[in-house]
Amino acid sequence: MSRGKLTYNRRMSLFSEISEQPERIKRLLASQRKNVERIAAEIQKRNIQYVFLAARGTSDNAGRYANYLLGAMNGLPLALATPSLFTYYKKPPTLKNALVIGISQSGKSPDIVSVLEDGKRQNCLTLAITNQTGSPLARTSDFVLDIQAGPERAVAATKTYTTELMSIAMLSAALSGKKSQWDDLSETPRWVKSALKQDGLIAESAQRYRYIDQTVVLGRGYNYSTAFEWALKLKELTYIIAEPYSSADFAHGPIAMVESGYPVFAVAPKGRVLGSMLGMLKRLRSDIAAELVVISNDKRALALAQVPLMIPADVPEWLSPLVSIIPAQLFAYHLTRAKGFDTERPRSIRKVTETK
Amino acid sequence: MSRGKLTYNRRMSLFSEISEQPERIKRLLASQRKNVERIAAEIQKRNIQYVFLAARGTSDNAGRYANYLLGAMNGLPLALATPSLFTYYKKPPTLKNALVIGISQSGKSPDIVSVLEDGKRQNCLTLAITNQTGSPLARTSDFVLDIQAGPERAVAATKTYTTELMSIAMLSAALSGKKSQWDDLSETPRWVKSALKQDGLIAESAQRYRYIDQTVVLGRGYNYSTAFEWALKLKELTYIIAEPYSSADFAHGPIAMVESGYPVFAVAPKGRVLGSMLGMLKRLRSDIAAELVVISNDKRALALAQVPLMIPADVPEWLSPLVSIIPAQLFAYHLTRAKGFDTERPRSIRKVTETK
Repeated sequence: MSRGKLTYNRRMSLFSEISEQPERIKRLLASQRKNVERIAAEIQKRNIQYVFLAARGTSDNAGRYANYLLGAMNGLPLALATPSLFTYYKKPPTLKNALVIGISQSGKSPDIVSVLEDGKRQNCLTLAITNQTGSPLARTSDFVLDIQAGPERAVAATKTYTTELMSIAMLSAALSGKKSQWDDLSETPRWVKSALKQDGLIAESAQRYRYIDQTVVLGRGYNYSTAFEWALKLKELTYIIAEPYSSADFAHGPIAMVESGYPVFAVAPKGRVLGSMLGMLKRLRSDIAAELVVISNDKRALALAQVPLMIPADVPEWLSPLVSIIPAQLFAYHLTRAKGFDTERPRSIRKVTETK
Repeated sequence: MSRGKLTYNRRMSLFSEISEQPERIKRLLASQRKNVERIAAEIQKRNIQYVFLAARGTSDNAGRYANYLLGAMNGLPLALATPSLFTYYKKPPTLKNALVIGISQSGKSPDIVSVLEDGKRQNCLTLAITNQTGSPLARTSDFVLDIQAGPERAVAATKTYTTELMSIAMLSAALSGKKSQWDDLSETPRWVKSALKQDGLIAESAQRYRYIDQTVVLGRGYNYSTAFEWALKLKELTYIIAEPYSSADFAHGPIAMVESGYPVFAVAPKGRVLGSMLGMLKRLRSDIAAELVVISNDKRALALAQVPLMIPADVPEWLSPLVSIIPAQLFAYHLTRAKGFDTERPRSIRKVTETK
């Protein structure tokens, strides 16, 4: 990649961390498969009826992926925890036959730890997905899935997001026991690497949005997570207000605020919800004359965009969130530079946020 | 109220419907209590382990209230359904020992109906909370809770939101069997009526925000729902981009986009999460010099605001979402007029949105 020389410059850790992702998820797949299969075997021994998942920020977006993936592939309903019930209200719900999962890069946020502690107190099986195996979250849990992202120095999380997604995808494959899922997983580092090659094009395209101060980000199904994570990177790094929606929720009211020229970002790869996304994109382009940036591997979706961002053609829908987030991260990075902001130290936020 | 003469003017149905709310929830409480107690008795006969809830738009915000209330008061974990798993992916999760609830004003949205149909197919107990007892949603469900809001003509939902909240609050009281909850419920119409009296003040205050084009809306715990619903009314009616957050999620990144003078709207009534909300409001006011509009019955929270919007002092936290949404609805209504937009027919949306 053209910026390779800068990769290990301390002031450029965000770009370096984005670039590391193919290697990190490849290593994770190789080193954690046995551990994940052991965890899956234990889950299958129990009478698990649903997943209760606690996370914040970027990790919560990984939780959104788990919601679709564990539902569609493994038949597991998933409830996203409301940590304040555990911390402020001291009224944790009764968790019977639940698998309690906490996702946190640092493993330190007291509210997430509190949900896992309560899961344990109620005799639920508990699992920590974290980058810090010595963290309070890891110490509280029956099982630890080490995302092995290495130290993340940039405040905006990138490689910990894709390794969290990979961990969840591996758990799904281990639970289903389908060889085809493991085969797809082994291709993923290659797809991610290929998506990184668009960097030069994205750097140029981002210039066009130098003066936007707001946008909406649309995604659906598996890529509902990608819409949330793209929006979060934009908010953290470029300070624009970027609101994520499923195309269905968007149609139930918020579409009213879009007018001619309004920038709409969308994640619409091939798959079951593509028809629904195409319908919305056509409506935005033809009826409202909105401005579209679209991440896709479908020609029709890309053709509707002023700025089309391509991902490889053969990515299966269930793994597309690991690949479609790459152009989104690069776009947020380059827009930050175009706007003249600091990519490494965004104002008002720190690397580890501890909330109750 | 000063605009009383306009109440039954067809062009003013939004204001009329906002004003009707005390009467509507009063009638609902009187007429549906027995039905709700019958539904609660049936729930208690079954081995219900969690609630699986499907809704969109305003009704989804009522679902957010249910998430906290049924958790804190009734120990029930709640999973918000992802309807596309049922419609596009055709992979509904396995719903065992779940109570499946659908909330929809019209009872018509095919995706919500589809979740309830599948719940029934999987032998779950199903409940429709709707304004249309003859709707497909009602016909699909074992039990129907008629919110009795009367015809809602304005595109932006108001009275169907508060009657949905009231229905959920009644269900919680019936499940817990606590007389104190029913006593609180009987006071609610009075609190709502009292909150409506601020209309003149809110009409004046809204002028100050004539030229905003974006905002964030903060709430936590029970009033996480209020933050979402206030933001949705602003988006539907005033076309500003208004993004809702819990104060905890907001601290995990998005706070970076707030700078001096940025308008932040907050819902911070007395209760368990007030301390957390006060901490965030102080940080926004002192460290960042943000502009604050605060709905509260706590003097400290109100004192931090440039525009304080009061609700009655004695509203208990668990029912505060039914009262705190009133100034929010009035604020959205008056800001729409200040901006010169149509309060009755927002662009690009219709009353009933049917999504798959």
